[in-house]
This record gives sequence, structure tokens and C-alpha cells, in this order.
Amino acid sequence: MPVKAFGAFAADKPLQALDIERRAVGAHDVQIEIAYCGVCHSDLHTVRSEWEGTLYPCVPGHEIVGRVSAVGGEVSKFAVGDIVGVGCMVDSCKHCHECDDGLEQYCAHGFVGTYNGPTEDAPGYTMGGYSQRIVVKDSFVLKISHPEDQLAAVAPLLCAGITTYSPLRHWNVGPGKKVGVVGIGGLGHMGVKLAHAMGAHVVAFTTSESKRQDALDLGADEVVVSRNPQEMEAHTGSFDFILDTVAASHNLDAFTALLKRDGTLCLVGVPEHPHPSPTVGVLIFGRKSIAGSLIGGIAETQEMLDFCAQHGIVSDIEMIKAQEINDAYERMLKSDVKYRFVIDSASLAEAAA
Amino acid sequence: MPVKAFGAFAADKPLQALDIERRAVGAHDVQIEIAYCGVCHSDLHTVRSEWEGTLYPCVPGHEIVGRVSAVGGEVSKFAVGDIVGVGCMVDSCKHCHECDDGLEQYCAHGFVGTYNGPTEDAPGYTMGGYSQRIVVKDSFVLKISHPEDQLAAVAPLLCAGITTYSPLRHWNVGPGKKVGVVGIGGLGHMGVKLAHAMGAHVVAFTTSESKRQDALDLGADEVVVSRNPQEMEAHTGSFDFILDTVAASHNLDAFTALLKRDGTLCLVGVPEHPHPSPTVGVLIFGRKSIAGSLIGGIAETQEMLDFCAQHGIVSDIEMIKAQEINDAYERMLKSDVKYRFVIDSASLAEAAA
Repeated sequence: MPVKAFGAFAADKPLQALDIERRAVGAHDVQIEIAYCGVCHSDLHTVRSEWEGTLYPCVPGHEIVGRVSAVGGEVSKFAVGDIVGVGCMVDSCKHCHECDDGLEQYCAHGFVGTYNGPTEDAPGYTMGGYSQRIVVKDSFVLKISHPEDQLAAVAPLLCAGITTYSPLRHWNVGPGKKVGVVGIGGLGHMGVKLAHAMGAHVVAFTTSESKRQDALDLGADEVVVSRNPQEMEAHTGSFDFILDTVAASHNLDAFTALLKRDGTLCLVGVPEHPHPSPTVGVLIFGRKSIAGSLIGGIAETQEMLDFCAQHGIVSDIEMIKAQEINDAYERMLKSDVKYRFVIDSASLAEAAA
Repeated sequence: MPVKAFGAFAADKPLQALDIERRAVGAHDVQIEIAYCGVCHSDLHTVRSEWEGTLYPCVPGHEIVGRVSAVGGEVSKFAVGDIVGVGCMVDSCKHCHECDDGLEQYCAHGFVGTYNGPTEDAPGYTMGGYSQRIVVKDSFVLKISHPEDQLAAVAPLLCAGITTYSPLRHWNVGPGKKVGVVGIGGLGHMGVKLAHAMGAHVVAFTTSESKRQDALDLGADEVVVSRNPQEMEAHTGSFDFILDTVAASHNLDAFTALLKRDGTLCLVGVPEHPHPSPTVGVLIFGRKSIAGSLIGGIAETQEMLDFCAQHGIVSDIEMIKAQEINDAYERMLKSDVKYRFVIDSASLAEAAA
């Protein structure tokens, strides 16, 4: 089945309209008419082959929301017309220790990414959500229970939402805990909303004085401008957990110093250039940790979606047409978006491949 | 009370015999006739002011074992003649959250080190165990239940023992866990013995092929020569916990790569020059942590001593006279010791101040 999509033919080429093929619906498959697809920084990294290994043409997109348009004969969990989502993964081995634990994102054999992942479908690698339709194994499809008028703003939950929800849950964020969120962007603004909804005392860290009010509006109890040493120092040794969403190379000691004994600084972004080496003494004199966390498993992604529906949480978005994606990438590079671009998939119908 | 000691008058001077004063025994004090004192790398760093802030004359030593020679009127836990130990701390604030939790090593106001720590006693800072006697508050004195003929080998438990025991316990090392110990020196050889006694599968990492048999003799189930990439690779993604005792700057990625999902690499040494910045992606793709840990609290130090007595664990030592300390430091710098020097305090009587 041919569908219209937006993608790039080379690392140095802009994205453009193209036609791609989707596989026939197999017994365990769900075919989804995509309504919206969020724009993640990973899309840009992959399209430009900044992480290497990108196969072209490349159609990115892993924050997908849409309506089920067909299901295979063995699918019982979903029916035509259901509103569903697809996140960063469309398959995994399902028999390793990680998959057994419901943590497919750490699959010992590597999960299959929603784009640029290995598949038996032509052309041999997956193509993502900047497209009209997608066919996905039922066990990697999520139910969405938000009101229909919120669906565009639900899309970013599938990556930005779960990437922040999972570590907040894993490190037991909740009432009585003081939690920091570093960087108020696509990931960070979700981190603030989620940590607030979990009942924690939330401190947002931003380099921009201009984001102070925005962060409070998102649900932060306090905002610290991290370029201000006095503001930072006032929080020394006081955090149970800090979620650092900033991928750009930066000084981690500024944040480990703010942790309580046994506190954790969790990184969710891979920097292009290494962070300055963290000072070991700060970790030792407080039994502190620096950790990493990757998206979340399928079961936890469903839990996150349900939690968000229950608490009325969605992403703050700016809707674009697929044809505006190259400009959107440039604006994203300048952090000129509050806080996530979402492609209105209806615009793909206009695309001339 | 004047006592004979060994210490240095300046950062660039060798240690020599000197006379120091000990305070009169207060109501809560225990006076100890020191029998043995272990030689820790921290002693050398402090004597040479490599961490800055050393006050002179400096008498190091915080792996102290001896016999109680006097107790204050309010002391009920100890009696004259008891065999006791003193480790790295002789006081803390006792009213902060850390002290309340029995974790005096993380005291919010800073614990008082056994040497070079602030005290009201003349000359205004503490002097350590390279001396004939010491007077210590009863709450910082440990009971020792090992047989008397093992006392010299017990001394290093007070720092090297607790520094490795505490993180092994904190990160739940025990049966069914695969645990690495990096560096087979003063700390590492204790880490291997303790992790083995806790029932874990223990892998010792050493840079020296020559230490392979030694590590097995200490209780390691396997030994990996970390300079051999093939040996390292065979253990990829398999460790629950790795205790890294190497203070010299080294590549941490080599060890984080060997951790399982949710595994922790715990550092107990502060490097003089920073380690190469750890690769964040390795942490993220496995929810791994790099942590630090500092000695252990008083209650846990007592627990460790009792555990060691029960399991017949002592340090492997080389006994020296105080007069041999400068040579011992030079040999320690070349890792030419199996695995801890211990000063026979009887030798201090011969010292001419």
C-alpha cells in the first residue's frame, strides 16, 4: 500500500514529499491512519545522520497518534476506529530478560526503532510517522483515552512524555520529594508537568531568565536560573532527584552539588561532545549517582498515557504542516518552540511526491 | 599527656619521630594504647598536602587497633583492657539528618577526621594513629572481637574494610549477584574478600597478569586482566555491581559497558586528575549509574568488624616499624605491598623525638 510521506534522501538534503510502501496487514498487525506526529530532536539527528548509520530515504517520526483503520485476524485488543499511539519502538526480541521484564527499550538484541530500524519489510528498515499510515505489531500499539480534541498535544507524550515519566517513576518521585528538572524544552516541560502531577516539589532549572514565568505556569514550584551562582548555591544538598534533559555538553557538577546524600542526577540526552568529566569527590561525599534512562517500556508507556489522561496532561505544542518541517528543524535548533512541533498529518495529502 | 608519635613537619619533609600531647580523659572519652596502625594512601596524600589544607606537624593514621587504658566516668560500653578500634572519624555534629541516620561520614557539618580535623584540643587539629596513645569519644570507638593474634591484620579493616563493605552492602551484594572489584590493592583485596564472604560471584579486575593467582587466592571466582579487550568483552552487560577502587585516572566506560541494565559502577577513590568523561550513551542504554561512596557510618563499621570476625576475615598485611614509614610510602606509590602496611606501634617506644 503506497502512502504519502515526508523524508530526506541524504544527510545534507532537506526533507521533501515522497511516496513509501506500507506492508499488508498481518494477523497481529494494526494499521493506523496517522492524525498527528510530534517532531523530536532525534528525528533531526537521524535525518542528518548525526548519529551515523542513517539509511535513505529516511522518514522520521516516533510520536504518532491516529485512528485504527484495519486490524489483523489475531488482533483482539484493538478495533477499527480506536484512537491509538505509537512511540519509539515497533518491535523487540520478546524473549530476553529485558523484554520479559517489560523493558523492551533495553532489549538485549536491540529494539526495532519506529524509523531507521531493521525490518523484513521493504526497503529493509523502518519508516516513521511523517506519513499518512503505518502498520505496527499490536503489542507495540498504545491505547489513548484523552479527549479527541487533545490528540495533537498527546502525540509528544509518546517520546518526550515517556522519556521523562519513566525515570521520575523509577526513582520514586512523589509527595515529599524535591525534584529538579534541568532544561525547559520539549522534554523538560513534560518533566515539570509530570513531576508536579506526581506530587513532588518541583524546581525548574533554565539558563533563560525569560522562561521563569513559563516554568511556573507549567507547574514548577520554584525556578532557578542556572547561570546565577547564588540562586544555585541556595539549593545545595537539597534534591532527592534531578532529571537533566539538556543534551548539550554542560557542567554536571553544578547539579550533583545540589543533590542530597543518596540523590541521583539522571541524564536523558546524549551529548554530541562529552560533558566535562564529573567531579568524583562530589559523588563520594554524599553517595550520589549519575545515571541514564532511555524512554520506557510498552507497559509503562501505557501507564504514562493513562496517568496523563487522568491528570489532564498533554504537551504544549505548535502545530505545523509537513511542508514546514525544514523550517521547524531550524527553529528547533534555536530552541524557538514552545515546546514541541507537531505535524498535522492531513497536510500530507497536499504533498506532491 | 605526652606520647611518642611519627609525623611530618612540612609537605616536603619525611616523617620523623616527634612528641605530641593527648588530652586528659573526659567523662565520655576512651583512652587507647595503640597496638597497630594501618597505612592508608590518604595518609600519604595528607602528609604531602596533596589535597591541600594540611596542618603541620601532621601525624596521620586512621586504621587504629589497641587496648583501652582508661575510660571516663560516663563511659559504660568500654572497660580498661578491651580491644578496640578507631577508624577515619573521631567526631561529628550528631544532630543533622545524616548523623541521625547513622551515616556520620556524610555529616552535614563535616565529620572530624582522625587526623587533620578540627578539634578544641591543642594544637587545634586532630593527630592520628602513628602514635602510642589516642583519646577518643566513646561513640566513635569500635569493639573488636577477632582473636588477639590477628589484631595487626584487623587494623586495615577500619578504613580499607569499611570503604569496601559499605557500598557492597548498600548496593545489596549477595548470593546470585555478579560483582566486580577493580584494582587489587589495599582496598580491592578487601573488596574481593568481603564480596566473596557475602556470597556473590566475584570477578577481580587487575591490570597485572601477575596478580591473577593472588586474586583467586583472595576469593575471586574469576580474574580479568583489564588490559585484555577480549577478556573484558566476554563480560559485557553481565555485572550487577562493580566496585572500582582505583584512584588513578582511568577509562570508566570499560566498566560501565560490563554492567547489566540497572547496574552501578561505584567509585571509592578520588582521582588526582579527572577520569576521561564517561560516555553518557552507555548509561542511558541500560539505565546504569556511576556512584560514589565514602567509608561507612559508625554503626556499619561495627557491623563490618563483627561480620569479619564471624567470617575470619582480616587484611593481608606487611608489618613495619614506624621508622620504616618513609620507605613504605615509596613502595606504596609503586603498589609494592601485599596489600597493606601496618605499623607495629611498639616500635614507637624506640623513637627518639
